[in-house]
Amino acid sequence: MAHIPLEDHLPGITGLLEYRRDTAEPIRELTQVLMRGPSTLTEAERELIAAVVSHENKCTFCTTAHTAVADTLYGDSTIAQKAKQQPEEAPLSDKMKALLHIARRVTVSGKYVNEEAVQQAKEHGASDLEIHDTVLIAALFCLYNRYVDGLGTHLPDDPSYYEGLAGRLSTNGYERMPEVYEELKQQRNKLK
Amino acid sequence: MAHIPLEDHLPGITGLLEYRRDTAEPIRELTQVLMRGPSTLTEAERELIAAVVSHENKCTFCTTAHTAVADTLYGDSTIAQKAKQQPEEAPLSDKMKALLHIARRVTVSGKYVNEEAVQQAKEHGASDLEIHDTVLIAALFCLYNRYVDGLGTHLPDDPSYYEGLAGRLSTNGYERMPEVYEELKQQRNKLK
Repeated sequence: MAHIPLEDHLPGITGLLEYRRDTAEPIRELTQVLMRGPSTLTEAERELIAAVVSHENKCTFCTTAHTAVADTLYGDSTIAQKAKQQPEEAPLSDKMKALLHIARRVTVSGKYVNEEAVQQAKEHGASDLEIHDTVLIAALFCLYNRYVDGLGTHLPDDPSYYEGLAGRLSTNGYERMPEVYEELKQQRNKLK
Repeated sequence: MAHIPLEDHLPGITGLLEYRRDTAEPIRELTQVLMRGPSTLTEAERELIAAVVSHENKCTFCTTAHTAVADTLYGDSTIAQKAKQQPEEAPLSDKMKALLHIARRVTVSGKYVNEEAVQQAKEHGASDLEIHDTVLIAALFCLYNRYVDGLGTHLPDDPSYYEGLAGRLSTNGYERMPEVYEELKQQRNKLK
């Protein structure tokens, strides 16, 4: 049972995002911008970072969910599996391997991201923005993993739940209501 | 030197929030709602959680900044110091001690927040929402600490920088432009 009263039919993060909607909204927006916004990293690559970080943090809900999203986006269910278990043997570019190495270090502590790890990513063609986004995605999933496990949320009873979630997240992204998000963006731009 | 090109005059998180503004905006908004929004935890208590978590993560910029904000809000520079170094002797309520105990556990892993820690907080009068917010504040500062250190941001040259920052954060909060935030809130409410 969760540490606070959450709706039974909403496992993992989903119950928390309903529990307090005014904090959920900027969390969703940050995730949407970072994971689905314009980027030279593909959506599959960004989901892979989320899956690997959640795996390192041993967060079952987030690992299973983001592995399922990465699998859906790659159209291949072996890549995330390898990236989590045997990263050096994963069928990924040297750049992605170097970025995942940075993400793993962030998971332990930001202080573990040393000059060598950054230099290696740059030598394999990673841009400054890709390095920034990798660190922020890893840090964001360190938040999610702690939020989900720290409040003792429950796992879905039916393992097929993750397939449905992966379908929604790969198609619709993280916003509660994409049309509201668009309106807000337009309003925000007008106000700037 | 930071791992990516950041403006020299902006230390710690401040350079990162300028580096990518579209991710900064929801991070600022989440922090504002959680740290300055209506709550039965005082702003000083919430800043204390941020300071203790940043201390546990050994993030110098965030620890110094949020200790300074907590000191300003408490009007006492011994409370945060004690809470970080000798938590059991800190002049805090049993409820706050129990919540800080939960926050410390979240810092290591969400999985370390056990039933006993939650029960103790509840016995000392913590509400479900206070437990939720403690876990989310701790998780959010696990994000900040990793973001700030993972990109190798620099510390301010002048230690009096933190006093100025604490003044701004205790008076104005975390929003870049409070008037934009208000407008957005109104727009969002209309759209709902």
